[in-house]
Amino acid sequence: MNIDSKNPGAEVPVLIAGEWRRAGNPAGTFSAVDPATKMPLPGLYPISGPDDVALACQAGLDAVMALRAMSDAAPENIGRFLDEYAARIEGAADALCEIAARETGYPVTPRLRAVELPRTTNQLRQGAAAARGRSWCQATIDTKANLRSKYAPLGGPVVVFGPNNFPFAFNSIAGGDFVAAIAAGNPVIGKANTGHPGTTRLLGELALAASRASGLPPAMVQLIYRTPPAVGFQLVSHPAVAATGFTGSKNAGLQLKEAAERAGKPIYLEMSSVNPIFILPGALAERSAAVAKELFDSCSLGAGQFCTRPGLSVVLGDASGEAFVATLAAAFAQGTPGTLLGASGLAGIASGLEELRRNGAEIVTGGDPVDGPRYCFANTLLRVSGDQFLASPHALQTEAFGTVNTVILASSIAQMEQIAARLEGNLTGSIYSDTTGKDDEAYGRLAAALRPKVGRLLNDKMPTGVAVSPAMNHGGPYPATGHPGFTAVGIPASILRFAALHCYDNVRPHRLPAELANPNPTGKMWRFVDGEWSQRDVPA
Amino acid sequence: MNIDSKNPGAEVPVLIAGEWRRAGNPAGTFSAVDPATKMPLPGLYPISGPDDVALACQAGLDAVMALRAMSDAAPENIGRFLDEYAARIEGAADALCEIAARETGYPVTPRLRAVELPRTTNQLRQGAAAARGRSWCQATIDTKANLRSKYAPLGGPVVVFGPNNFPFAFNSIAGGDFVAAIAAGNPVIGKANTGHPGTTRLLGELALAASRASGLPPAMVQLIYRTPPAVGFQLVSHPAVAATGFTGSKNAGLQLKEAAERAGKPIYLEMSSVNPIFILPGALAERSAAVAKELFDSCSLGAGQFCTRPGLSVVLGDASGEAFVATLAAAFAQGTPGTLLGASGLAGIASGLEELRRNGAEIVTGGDPVDGPRYCFANTLLRVSGDQFLASPHALQTEAFGTVNTVILASSIAQMEQIAARLEGNLTGSIYSDTTGKDDEAYGRLAAALRPKVGRLLNDKMPTGVAVSPAMNHGGPYPATGHPGFTAVGIPASILRFAALHCYDNVRPHRLPAELANPNPTGKMWRFVDGEWSQRDVPA
Repeated sequence: MNIDSKNPGAEVPVLIAGEWRRAGNPAGTFSAVDPATKMPLPGLYPISGPDDVALACQAGLDAVMALRAMSDAAPENIGRFLDEYAARIEGAADALCEIAARETGYPVTPRLRAVELPRTTNQLRQGAAAARGRSWCQATIDTKANLRSKYAPLGGPVVVFGPNNFPFAFNSIAGGDFVAAIAAGNPVIGKANTGHPGTTRLLGELALAASRASGLPPAMVQLIYRTPPAVGFQLVSHPAVAATGFTGSKNAGLQLKEAAERAGKPIYLEMSSVNPIFILPGALAERSAAVAKELFDSCSLGAGQFCTRPGLSVVLGDASGEAFVATLAAAFAQGTPGTLLGASGLAGIASGLEELRRNGAEIVTGGDPVDGPRYCFANTLLRVSGDQFLASPHALQTEAFGTVNTVILASSIAQMEQIAARLEGNLTGSIYSDTTGKDDEAYGRLAAALRPKVGRLLNDKMPTGVAVSPAMNHGGPYPATGHPGFTAVGIPASILRFAALHCYDNVRPHRLPAELANPNPTGKMWRFVDGEWSQRDVPA
Repeated sequence: MNIDSKNPGAEVPVLIAGEWRRAGNPAGTFSAVDPATKMPLPGLYPISGPDDVALACQAGLDAVMALRAMSDAAPENIGRFLDEYAARIEGAADALCEIAARETGYPVTPRLRAVELPRTTNQLRQGAAAARGRSWCQATIDTKANLRSKYAPLGGPVVVFGPNNFPFAFNSIAGGDFVAAIAAGNPVIGKANTGHPGTTRLLGELALAASRASGLPPAMVQLIYRTPPAVGFQLVSHPAVAATGFTGSKNAGLQLKEAAERAGKPIYLEMSSVNPIFILPGALAERSAAVAKELFDSCSLGAGQFCTRPGLSVVLGDASGEAFVATLAAAFAQGTPGTLLGASGLAGIASGLEELRRNGAEIVTGGDPVDGPRYCFANTLLRVSGDQFLASPHALQTEAFGTVNTVILASSIAQMEQIAARLEGNLTGSIYSDTTGKDDEAYGRLAAALRPKVGRLLNDKMPTGVAVSPAMNHGGPYPATGHPGFTAVGIPASILRFAALHCYDNVRPHRLPAELANPNPTGKMWRFVDGEWSQRDVPA
């Protein structure tokens, strides 16, 4: 952890093939910036060029071969690695939270130490259990046809691009995509988010030590910090690379998508979402102030920089709707605006607001950056009529990534339905309704329109909490993600993104992988045998 | 079935929104050609333009809404439709086989009547059972978090492009992709293969009647015959279209892939495969002649026009390998060449052979078209050394879609491994080995190299049989398909390609779809409840 610590001006090394080494012919360097002071933090991180990409890809392939040679020991080694990594993260929690706080402006407590770090180690341990348990691979056996199939590692390293807003839980070398790719048995090449390179570097040290302690190949986890765009495209389309997981902006995501898909490489993207909240009249009549508080709390969580932050809400434009807007406006006006992750966040909110206003949304409160030492933008509430929204539905779904919400005042329930029908793909959609059933008829109509637009439909609940559960879907229709059938959160489903389907036809019993042989390899693994899910051995 | 039958020069109608209607502003017409005579068959089929695409897409969306309104009755209605359709296909088997034989040159018996038609009705009935049984949707319930999720229809029509080589089993409106899309609850817009439009039209009549008899919306099955390329791109990227299934040439597939993916639409492609057969020395010593016969029989099945036809075989270049080539050559020379599906098949084989020869492959037997009334190309065997293959691995994997096989004579088992490692993605790969275990060490090394290159790994078996089993994988790494995690054959896995993941978070019990409510909706549906696969009700 102390490489060059005595010489903060020296270039930070990248992690390639199990070694911290100087970047080869980097395209430049960059520093992280403290969002609370707008001052650069120590550490010059390299902008990697094609040399690093070539080396990391080759080392990733070597790791694939080494994992393959481990054969049936791989699941246990991977499980040990993920558990070990989780323990080392806990052991270094103070250091991790300190540097993450400096790089992100998030408070150590509760956000980093009490919420995000435990969530991250929990995910790692769930991944460990899944790797060991093996049920994720959906072993399917047809004894009559002597056909057996299961999901298997992809055969190349997986590239993970982490977002700026979760320095631990979605980190390229510690977060959800990382866990999923590793649990499936793939090495990972992490591309750090440039907002928190120091946090990621420290995680890299812990991951490297954990992989050494677990007998995994040295290139199981590799790390570069940044690339010029063209080198990023080269990375995701590299012949050795098997797939990519990306969480970040729509602009960057769509460009990487094109590069990867042109090369025939799967890429999983989580890009943008306004997470609409529909509040039916009965809910307003019953608990308007409580819902307004919930909405503000959810919208302002992490300074509004959650993928599942509610950016759009819809109420009827009657007296109750107006009262709701007034209550909400007070909450927005009174709440202390959070610290944004960086200058690009400020610019993004400003340009988003401009687009919203150009299309008829009016500022109710906020609307401007807050002067001072930190990156900060006023909590901003906008309003627009349902008619206006329906006239410019695309523009009025522009994401402003911060504590920003646009309330649509609809003329009727029927117009609420029309609004839902014009939504683009979202991660989530929530409907609040009267608890005694008065809104049920309206709910039915609205939910039918909203359901196909979102990955997760909520009742009476804000979407910012994303439980790590097998039943979670942190995904949704394009352009929220690149494919409506996959989730980025939730084990085992998220693992399947990074797996290939392998069938064995008439393969002799002693040549089958353990998961497909007659004896159940763990005694507990779930397999689909002759049309039934079972934990039993297959009779010989 | 008799539209315009008295006027064979009149333009055949398309099936849009439940009606047979004249194509709107078609870009022209075409006729099918009898491969046995090279003469055009009766029937002028329209080349659909943007008008037909727009109408079909709107009608497809209407069908989505109608299905949604059926709610929990939809699975039963879909099951009834698929069963009814299968029965009507059996009732019209004579007429179907007659027209399919004329359009494809395939013999009625056994190919069409005894093999492909029963396979097709079997698939339809498996799809019916899956739709009714609902286990395919992988309902996942976390009672503690009150999170519930399942796969659901995509929310738009699915476009299916069928290939030329299976007029029934992979037909755009009767085959595997069709069944999968329908079983998931999506309407289908079929783009007929231009080789067998009459067969597809007749299937369209049966499908329409079956859908009427089952209470499904009129646009559940729609049919157009052909489009100019730009209109095809428009179709797969249309805002209303949810996804596409394509089986056909790599050239057309890659163009459609780019158009669909640019619009954020999933597309599943099955494009090309040379299906390598590795024959280890012990197998040659034990049963050289028998393997040669199996290889020729598999390679010549359907005149070599199977996606899983073995196009490449690999033996050691010693005396046994030379003897194997000689035996195989005799089989190729003596076998009667089959009738190809059309003129493009002839041209495709010729250009494939040219590419193979340009890169060092030598013709052992065959190599030329066969003159006569029918489309026919001599059974063709080529040979090339392992060194030559490794010098031009890409070119020497050029597909020649007919009874064509290239034998690679390798210098050693290690070179066989290198050859396997240089293979592109394939649907299948087979290894033949000595039955007493003498080849086991070589098998282990070779299988490790071959496994990641193929969707299905076979032992001592040719790949042309593709059982419709839950454990089948008719898929594989790019460029055999567009994604290594999906199969085009096998229920339930193939259905998941055409489904979106829908999560319900804190949704009130009476608003949940039946599959996610506490009571098991069929009493037998498999659900993943709190980490266990179960057929039980969830305790309230």
